[in-house]
Amino acid sequence: MRAARERQAQLVKPAGALGRLEELAIWLAGVTGSARPSVRARVIVAAADHGVAEERVSAFPQAVTRQMLAVFLAGRGAVSALARETGADLMVVDAGVAGEEPDGEEEPDAREHGPLEGANAATTVPAAASPQSPAASSPQSRTALSPIVRLGLSPSRNLATEPALTSQEVALAVDAGRSLAAQAAADGVTVLVGGEMGIANTTPATCLTAALTGRPAAELVGAGTGVDAAGLERKRAVVERALALHGDGLRGPLGALRRVGGGELAVLCGLALGAGEHGLGYVCDGVIATAGAAVAVALEPGLLPRLLAGHRSPEPAHAALLEHLGLEPVLDLGMRLGEGSGATAALAILRLAAAAHDGMATFADAGVAGRG
Amino acid sequence: MRAARERQAQLVKPAGALGRLEELAIWLAGVTGSARPSVRARVIVAAADHGVAEERVSAFPQAVTRQMLAVFLAGRGAVSALARETGADLMVVDAGVAGEEPDGEEEPDAREHGPLEGANAATTVPAAASPQSPAASSPQSRTALSPIVRLGLSPSRNLATEPALTSQEVALAVDAGRSLAAQAAADGVTVLVGGEMGIANTTPATCLTAALTGRPAAELVGAGTGVDAAGLERKRAVVERALALHGDGLRGPLGALRRVGGGELAVLCGLALGAGEHGLGYVCDGVIATAGAAVAVALEPGLLPRLLAGHRSPEPAHAALLEHLGLEPVLDLGMRLGEGSGATAALAILRLAAAAHDGMATFADAGVAGRG
Repeated sequence: MRAARERQAQLVKPAGALGRLEELAIWLAGVTGSARPSVRARVIVAAADHGVAEERVSAFPQAVTRQMLAVFLAGRGAVSALARETGADLMVVDAGVAGEEPDGEEEPDAREHGPLEGANAATTVPAAASPQSPAASSPQSRTALSPIVRLGLSPSRNLATEPALTSQEVALAVDAGRSLAAQAAADGVTVLVGGEMGIANTTPATCLTAALTGRPAAELVGAGTGVDAAGLERKRAVVERALALHGDGLRGPLGALRRVGGGELAVLCGLALGAGEHGLGYVCDGVIATAGAAVAVALEPGLLPRLLAGHRSPEPAHAALLEHLGLEPVLDLGMRLGEGSGATAALAILRLAAAAHDGMATFADAGVAGRG
Repeated sequence: MRAARERQAQLVKPAGALGRLEELAIWLAGVTGSARPSVRARVIVAAADHGVAEERVSAFPQAVTRQMLAVFLAGRGAVSALARETGADLMVVDAGVAGEEPDGEEEPDAREHGPLEGANAATTVPAAASPQSPAASSPQSRTALSPIVRLGLSPSRNLATEPALTSQEVALAVDAGRSLAAQAAADGVTVLVGGEMGIANTTPATCLTAALTGRPAAELVGAGTGVDAAGLERKRAVVERALALHGDGLRGPLGALRRVGGGELAVLCGLALGAGEHGLGYVCDGVIATAGAAVAVALEPGLLPRLLAGHRSPEPAHAALLEHLGLEPVLDLGMRLGEGSGATAALAILRLAAAAHDGMATFADAGVAGRG
């Protein structure tokens, strides 16, 4: 970071004139250990279903989670398109999606190997024809398949009436996330994005935010995918019931993850922990991914400098988490889709930061005069 | 735009969940006339020197303008790196740079042909190996030459003591900008970025902002490239002297451009006018480029829907111009370099918007359930 900061001071521009791009280049130098770092990014989308969906806290039916998995596998989701454009590869994790797997899906199945081997054995394919080139205009990139890792988990239980996960489920999902980060590091990835899909999952994420920040539900509950006023009221009541039900059981981060979390939230926690263990940068997406990362930071505070807030979502709990973690988002585009879409969009800015840092001349080698 | 808006409503995501990315795709559809638009971008950096530099309103010596031209021509400026990364090509216009042209520059010289033929005859080279692919990692892209168009203009006169330009100079530079936009359209470009280089040019841009918005100098003067407190005070006094000297001569936009503008500002005005005339989108950079665009809008208000504010710079006059034009910037990264760097960074977000718009499945073709 020191060497990158010195280089920034020599580049042919007034000091600080590239603003956040300078800070991002220095951050990337820190996470990669290179004074001239490059972005090799992987997006891992963890998907799961949630028992709390039966409380009608989402505007969409639960079947959408599995349907969206198929969309990601076909390379046709928002995050698929954004990952292609930013040269990131994309991977999907089934961390407890409801319903039957469709027949004839041509994809690796990791269940028989257990999550660790499954994660290590899965091969990722670049979302684009080449990880260095956005290929949105290339026809075959639209149908590029994303690999899937299946953890063999069931959907979570209804957190408003019982703990959402068992300790074994939490451990399995967190370890799977850590293994996927290890695999990414082994593959030469420098920056990891955790994304998610799971109907109703802003409810567990909001419960976790309340548990981690101590703020009341009324300040944190938002519209998620676009629930109406009655749904918003139900959602607030469900979060309050869950917080009252689990009480002191929410004090420890792993206890909170078990009681009011979910499969994808546990994988996201593991991804962030693994990024810390294996020397990766980790870009936080919206409220669900950031809640997973905040659990990881509660377990391992030394991880914090490796986190970057990709964007600011309109969910109130997301703002609370960013403030709690002291992170300033790169983008503020009103995005509220999840999937890792906001963090993946921020990869484009991170790439610009690295490109300017690497590609610009210095005052000395360009023979340009300094300040008068 | 209507067709693009309908498509956005069918894409496999909650309505509005991609926030600004949806609006950008619809905007791009409007400027291109295509419901599935793509970004083919060109960055044109207009450079000029300014007589007002003798008032010591900049932290850098005037020689830097010409030195930076050489940096751009060698592909080693910030905007060069950002253009490569976003797949935009890059062109440089000498609109009155002080000092001798160095011998042996291998570049087209348009002076003998006049600005119109010069602009039309100049060939652009992509800043990257391919305009579709960021090639920051490709060694040859770092030395890719950018073509230059020379208008044969002299630096402006000191706007604090006399009109900066003659009517003939204004007409020549504005027409050159319009011709360059025409050429871009003929080359298949859909989005134009105007950038600039010119030591002391936040002073004329601030004078123009005062003329266009009616705001007092004290609210508008900023630190530019990083002038100190005494320099800032000199700059404020110079802007006030200029506004008093030229008085009612600043009421018409072309009169203001002549009296307190500059060569690059007139080219930037012409680029924006030309974008309107030839059906291009135009992304505004910081205070100088946006001042040029604001003069264009004063001349041709129908142009406004084709303008996009790429970013928000910390210069107070830039905020005043954005408010005056009613534009909401895409990025807010504390960038204050000029060169078109902020607008070029925003091209990355525009590309993401187009990629999601084009690459995502619809609810119907993916078989995903809608709202419950």
